[in-house]
Amino acid sequence: MLGDLPTSACRMTFIQKLQQAWERSNSLVCVGLDPDLDRLPTHLPRDGAGVLEFHRAIVDATHDLVCAYKPQIAYFAAEGLEDTLAATIDYIRERAPQVPIILDAKRGDIGSTAEQYAREAFERYGADAVTVNPYMGGDTLEPFLRHANRGVVILCRTSNPGAGDFQDLDVNGRPLFEIVAERAATRWNSAGNCLLVVGATWPEQLARVRSIVGDMPLLVPGVGAQGGDVEKLVRAGRTAAGTGLLINSSRGILYASRKADFAQSARTATIDLQQLINHHRAA
Amino acid sequence: MLGDLPTSACRMTFIQKLQQAWERSNSLVCVGLDPDLDRLPTHLPRDGAGVLEFHRAIVDATHDLVCAYKPQIAYFAAEGLEDTLAATIDYIRERAPQVPIILDAKRGDIGSTAEQYAREAFERYGADAVTVNPYMGGDTLEPFLRHANRGVVILCRTSNPGAGDFQDLDVNGRPLFEIVAERAATRWNSAGNCLLVVGATWPEQLARVRSIVGDMPLLVPGVGAQGGDVEKLVRAGRTAAGTGLLINSSRGILYASRKADFAQSARTATIDLQQLINHHRAA
Repeated sequence: MLGDLPTSACRMTFIQKLQQAWERSNSLVCVGLDPDLDRLPTHLPRDGAGVLEFHRAIVDATHDLVCAYKPQIAYFAAEGLEDTLAATIDYIRERAPQVPIILDAKRGDIGSTAEQYAREAFERYGADAVTVNPYMGGDTLEPFLRHANRGVVILCRTSNPGAGDFQDLDVNGRPLFEIVAERAATRWNSAGNCLLVVGATWPEQLARVRSIVGDMPLLVPGVGAQGGDVEKLVRAGRTAAGTGLLINSSRGILYASRKADFAQSARTATIDLQQLINHHRAA
Repeated sequence: MLGDLPTSACRMTFIQKLQQAWERSNSLVCVGLDPDLDRLPTHLPRDGAGVLEFHRAIVDATHDLVCAYKPQIAYFAAEGLEDTLAATIDYIRERAPQVPIILDAKRGDIGSTAEQYAREAFERYGADAVTVNPYMGGDTLEPFLRHANRGVVILCRTSNPGAGDFQDLDVNGRPLFEIVAERAATRWNSAGNCLLVVGATWPEQLARVRSIVGDMPLLVPGVGAQGGDVEKLVRAGRTAAGTGLLINSSRGILYASRKADFAQSARTATIDLQQLINHHRAA
């Protein structure tokens, strides 16, 4: 069984940890931690202590129901709450060491600078995986990819309304995002540590990516506040094993209630999403 | 004269501040602040205090010779030195309020998250401009662009060896980076606050971008350690007025010496680059 993971978890690769988390939780739900101070439960202080208390309660209430947590660094950085981000990650490690942590940072820069960003994600914060932007080219992904036991989650077809501006541009008869998917499958994944981001808002494109990358895990933001359809995305993106997806919800879970019952409401919202997904996984 | 800028500088747009800085300094040199602890002058401590002392000395020694400073946030973030980044920016504001500050962060995310990144750059750190990544689409640039008095420096054709992996992909007969340049010129620049990043290592592509974007300022990294040729890039990128470029050098200036004379060596390296550039500007 997977009860005693703290030590062995450190030696597993991200992908192994993710596969065990899918199995253990029977869930494809990833909870995004986007701490918007204006939306915290009304009784909590609007500061780092309030955010940490909020995240602890969310983790306590949801850790058995999720395959990953995804803190979004922008929300912490805007408020100067790097220490709160570190404390949030430390708390997840302690409370739920079996749950992988993806730092959502969408980093990307030339090699020497990318090395610093990899240190930020993997050493400073100890994240199991980080999101990165491929626009600058394959050499800028290398400093992340060489951390073979960490996950590198590459933007492919994002969830926002303007995703197609560049990602759909026609490159010799194929949209750019398919080129990104193909390179991930054929060039960047030699250590088996690549994932891709494909928005829940684009089930057709999700199906295309799935057909290109085999069983590579896909991080799927965009359900809930952004309006992605769970049935369509699960049908489009699941693997033969019925996994392969990390379906992220942030606001729909975190801010299900602003009252004292916020954690219970978050748990209920997570269960609802887990069951909805599982219904369509099995279908 | 421009001697008393602290107050009025706050009301100027980034582009106005940049134009005054070009004129006042007679320089297209931008000094990149990439604080690598392993390369600090040997007598300085390898911590935030050492980095701040280093940056103060660099700013003291170069501020009359530069059109901008460009702190690279990755180096600070890897070490947990956000406070040192803020103190560095505060010091530039105090010592050289006429010099614009570009936060090199290459941010990019969906709208609600991009708003947090804009707050990080413009409110938390008070930067005059920030670098951003266009891959996710025009709507993800909006939260930055709506800060009309700040500069938004969009990645176009970057300086790294693999820049062409995606940026040169053929989109209906044109490389992708030209599409980015065209959108910057025709769609994103309604407030007149766009700039583009084009690497010094690619003078032909720099000339193409210049032909597309008119007088839009271009941030040009890649001279010095990365090997860009100053004569070629100046000829390719200058505007009719002989400006339009921020030519960044980081390592070549910061680490010109590791001895007690490091600041004088940085000044000498900056003057050498300024004069080399000015020679070819005039030619």
